[in-house]
Amino acid sequence: MILIKFGGSVITDKSRYRTFNADIVKRLCKEIKDSGEKVIVVHGAGSFGHVLAKEHNLNGGFKDASQIPAVAQVCYDMRYLNEMIVKELNDAGLPAISVPTGSCFMMRNRELIIDDASVLKSMFDKGIMPVMFGDVVMDSELGFAICSGDQVMERLKEIFDPSRVIFVSDIDGLYDKDPKKNKDAKLIEEVTEDVMNNVETDISVDDVTGGVRGKMEIMLKMCSGGNDCVLVNGAVEGRLLSLLKGEEVPCTIARRD
Amino acid sequence: MILIKFGGSVITDKSRYRTFNADIVKRLCKEIKDSGEKVIVVHGAGSFGHVLAKEHNLNGGFKDASQIPAVAQVCYDMRYLNEMIVKELNDAGLPAISVPTGSCFMMRNRELIIDDASVLKSMFDKGIMPVMFGDVVMDSELGFAICSGDQVMERLKEIFDPSRVIFVSDIDGLYDKDPKKNKDAKLIEEVTEDVMNNVETDISVDDVTGGVRGKMEIMLKMCSGGNDCVLVNGAVEGRLLSLLKGEEVPCTIARRD
Repeated sequence: MILIKFGGSVITDKSRYRTFNADIVKRLCKEIKDSGEKVIVVHGAGSFGHVLAKEHNLNGGFKDASQIPAVAQVCYDMRYLNEMIVKELNDAGLPAISVPTGSCFMMRNRELIIDDASVLKSMFDKGIMPVMFGDVVMDSELGFAICSGDQVMERLKEIFDPSRVIFVSDIDGLYDKDPKKNKDAKLIEEVTEDVMNNVETDISVDDVTGGVRGKMEIMLKMCSGGNDCVLVNGAVEGRLLSLLKGEEVPCTIARRD
Repeated sequence: MILIKFGGSVITDKSRYRTFNADIVKRLCKEIKDSGEKVIVVHGAGSFGHVLAKEHNLNGGFKDASQIPAVAQVCYDMRYLNEMIVKELNDAGLPAISVPTGSCFMMRNRELIIDDASVLKSMFDKGIMPVMFGDVVMDSELGFAICSGDQVMERLKEIFDPSRVIFVSDIDGLYDKDPKKNKDAKLIEEVTEDVMNNVETDISVDDVTGGVRGKMEIMLKMCSGGNDCVLVNGAVEGRLLSLLKGEEVPCTIARRD
């Protein structure tokens, strides 16, 4: 199977609170369906989660009761976004059910714990895609905290052992310099430990929480075991489909030596 | 705390696919808020779940792949209903988060298993209401099956040990005969084992899956330990609030001798 993350920047307009890119998501779901591959989709929060979560410092954990309505609202907004994505998957002929991360699982000091994956496996075995996402999650140490879509990807990789991991973003890949400020910025086609250690540490890309180095770290984590991990531009029509069909497309591939 | 079930007949129009009684739900949420009581709400499926579930015999378990899109659609419809209820709770000032039964838990031969209630407890301890509902649930023996809102109530009773259990329906209570056919049908104010064993077995009420006898059985199950279990008419304004405030209202109370 193939594990795919829809980044927040491609499924939402990150600059406007709760703006869903319905046309792009519809097309991406169709591209997955057309590929014929068995896939699990995870998605990010984009403008549905980050605004309120930041305003009430939800990632700092429980401080006082004034945060509680914001926790409920962010969870509501995320489930609302998730519902629209699940609808597009179903409409594309990919039976899917929402599995809200923070409703089903706990964290322990910011680490997402999935001790019991039986619901996830049971759905997948029947041809149903469980759809998880970045969320506010109850934390046994901190009260609650933010769980990123990338953390969900890590756990699902352990559970489903995918042949390929794909991050769908709104950029062609990772660059060696900030492409908005440097005309000579080059697309990094392949990420290895070496490449990562030589990249500028302060490059940030809209979709990339934690910057390019952080994204490389996660991509390298996700390609253990000889399988690659790819970052591809989902805003360009047909690119995800091409990648799924094994064709060459502009992208960044992480490989462990 | 008090455990409340919103029956499908009071929150939806059971005769029309996916019709939500928004005004009633809004009022019920406000009545809970006004009571000042700590509450967890569970809800039924009504016209959001029963139609498709019956059409594809989802309660018979997994037979063939043709059922899978229907499983996904019923789950989608239930989460859509749940989202509207969670929104009304939040709007009423009761922070709430959806905890979709079939996304979070398994069944074993139609028995809902909640081995790990840490998310439910962690939310509740922080003043967040986890909102569960009747759903299609993966079943380790049958593939999948229907879990009723009443079964969810049974598990939550074990977990939260409520001082009171309330079923909110669209009828004043249970009757000794079918009130639609018999003018002399009497409201049963108190249900005990004795009363149950002497009631006609074939009485059915719109909201009461399994008939009046089945409802009595569940109500008696839910009032072990000296606490009562009440069925009250939520279609009548103020009745739930009165009940929560300890006032006398028309209702059926189940008590164990």
